[in-house]
Amino acid sequence: MGEFELIRKYFTLHSNEVNLEQNCVQLGIGDDCALINIPHGDVLAVSTDTFLEGTHFFKDTNPFAIGFKSLAVNLSDLAAMGAEPVAFTLALTLPDSNEDFIAEFSRGLFTIADRFRISLVGGDTTRGPLSVTITVMGKTPCNEAIRRSGARDNDVICVSGALGGAAYGVALRYDKSKIHGNPDSAKAFNLLDYPNPRMDLVPFMHKYRVNSALDISDGFLGDLKHILDSSEKSAEIDIKDIPISEALHNLPADEQLNYALNGGDDYEICFTLSEKDYLLWQDDYKSGKAPKIYRVGTIKELSDNRISKGNRVTFTENGKAVSRHIDRNSFSHF
Amino acid sequence: MGEFELIRKYFTLHSNEVNLEQNCVQLGIGDDCALINIPHGDVLAVSTDTFLEGTHFFKDTNPFAIGFKSLAVNLSDLAAMGAEPVAFTLALTLPDSNEDFIAEFSRGLFTIADRFRISLVGGDTTRGPLSVTITVMGKTPCNEAIRRSGARDNDVICVSGALGGAAYGVALRYDKSKIHGNPDSAKAFNLLDYPNPRMDLVPFMHKYRVNSALDISDGFLGDLKHILDSSEKSAEIDIKDIPISEALHNLPADEQLNYALNGGDDYEICFTLSEKDYLLWQDDYKSGKAPKIYRVGTIKELSDNRISKGNRVTFTENGKAVSRHIDRNSFSHF
Repeated sequence: MGEFELIRKYFTLHSNEVNLEQNCVQLGIGDDCALINIPHGDVLAVSTDTFLEGTHFFKDTNPFAIGFKSLAVNLSDLAAMGAEPVAFTLALTLPDSNEDFIAEFSRGLFTIADRFRISLVGGDTTRGPLSVTITVMGKTPCNEAIRRSGARDNDVICVSGALGGAAYGVALRYDKSKIHGNPDSAKAFNLLDYPNPRMDLVPFMHKYRVNSALDISDGFLGDLKHILDSSEKSAEIDIKDIPISEALHNLPADEQLNYALNGGDDYEICFTLSEKDYLLWQDDYKSGKAPKIYRVGTIKELSDNRISKGNRVTFTENGKAVSRHIDRNSFSHF
Repeated sequence: MGEFELIRKYFTLHSNEVNLEQNCVQLGIGDDCALINIPHGDVLAVSTDTFLEGTHFFKDTNPFAIGFKSLAVNLSDLAAMGAEPVAFTLALTLPDSNEDFIAEFSRGLFTIADRFRISLVGGDTTRGPLSVTITVMGKTPCNEAIRRSGARDNDVICVSGALGGAAYGVALRYDKSKIHGNPDSAKAFNLLDYPNPRMDLVPFMHKYRVNSALDISDGFLGDLKHILDSSEKSAEIDIKDIPISEALHNLPADEQLNYALNGGDDYEICFTLSEKDYLLWQDDYKSGKAPKIYRVGTIKELSDNRISKGNRVTFTENGKAVSRHIDRNSFSHF
């Protein structure tokens, strides 16, 4: 089967099926452009990410996971903005027309596309070193998109899930001697290869008036800094409140904390909201009506004199000042 | 200067300036997503294309031209759909952080972005073999997008400009012995490297109720076939009416025709409209109120018995049947 036929078999035909279910998509693949209806009162949210073999995923990553994760991390950007998925385009560069690869890649891609009801509406396939660029489009009510810049004094800082497990997966892929007999390696690899974009949070982020949000892709501390820079605020973080991934539970406490604070690839959401809204969310969580969230700190004025110059985050431990050293350097992805 | 600073200097800062002028763009680069207002009554048009060194442009193409052409060919897709430009994202993969390259690439990119008032709203930069993926977004009134599938019996088939010059540029880049002393090589390279997306046609395509359109990227005959397949029609083309690029005028007549019919990279628009609307357009052209267009043939019923089986295009020459052989094979891009 030629490359054109492979693309048609594994991408074009599937995408048309999904399009029929998606009333936003007026015209899918096959013309010069796709056509998409953005409902009146909504704004379009757009994000682009490139995935390169050797930079964003290891050479031995299975094609199903590459397809899955490429779209998952883009969906995560929509979730962080408070947007619902609508459509995406795929630019795929392949070294050869290997049907096994294309079949598994597309199965991974459409597993997550179908789960979150997002339509493939266009793309381009070229020959070259393996690379995946996805542009994802979503919608959110005008003036309700959640920006990084909206954090307010005394906002509660939350994260949507346990941190550090995916970064441990990266470390294990680098040092394979630590995989054998390690009860946690499967968990860590699962977190690394199959991130769960937190689309489930979106309605709750609007309901509880979340003021600022982003997704944790480069490590909690580094990403929190983007909120603090954009919002011109500082933060106090209690290290005992950081939720640690289960995949790390057999490591020494300091290593656990280091992965959770500085590891990347979590794709949980970090967000801030008022104390009052946080308490409402917690009440609803306790009665089973909202997803679990983790309070990890508080937004402070930038002029707060407890914040040392040049560093916007201070740490406490069970409410008291921390005496021990806390590593603040993000891991590199690879 | 590090890569992050280079990107900031040459892309982020510029894009913000353009954003301020573009009232569709609510939020540009710098958050998890960009936010774009699609006016009520309009539909979003989206297209993605990848440009790879060695596949879509020659290794010695200057970076200004790479930046210019990458966006130009995407804008051409919007024009072919009858859409006005709004915003684009850029995924750029670079082998190294060469400031000269980035400066010239971005100058080419923003030369055309500014000309057509389209905003860069997001992107991603990665390290790897040179590759440019652009996703372009435009808007067009709901139900007025011009599809490939709308051609009607007896529609006049038009093209928006002379054909074949860019393909001659490709041929000259392959066989450099023919460049020296060739008075046409500069014209051909200019057509190849700096295609002019025909955004100027968009208002006229709507005004004269164009029924079907696409842009000529793979060669006139091959692209016309997409209209005929989608619309379930056939066509009669008069080879004497095909407008031949000036860059070809010193070649033998058969070669000229071959480049014009089968060469790619023209980025002119091929479209169909009723005889009545064609005559109205021509009247307005003669009084200086509409751009020049070239009538090249007529859409016919698919069952028309003059159409030989398996071939949807028949040729005439000054209105009479053609006896000589006409090559119908598209050139490959490279």
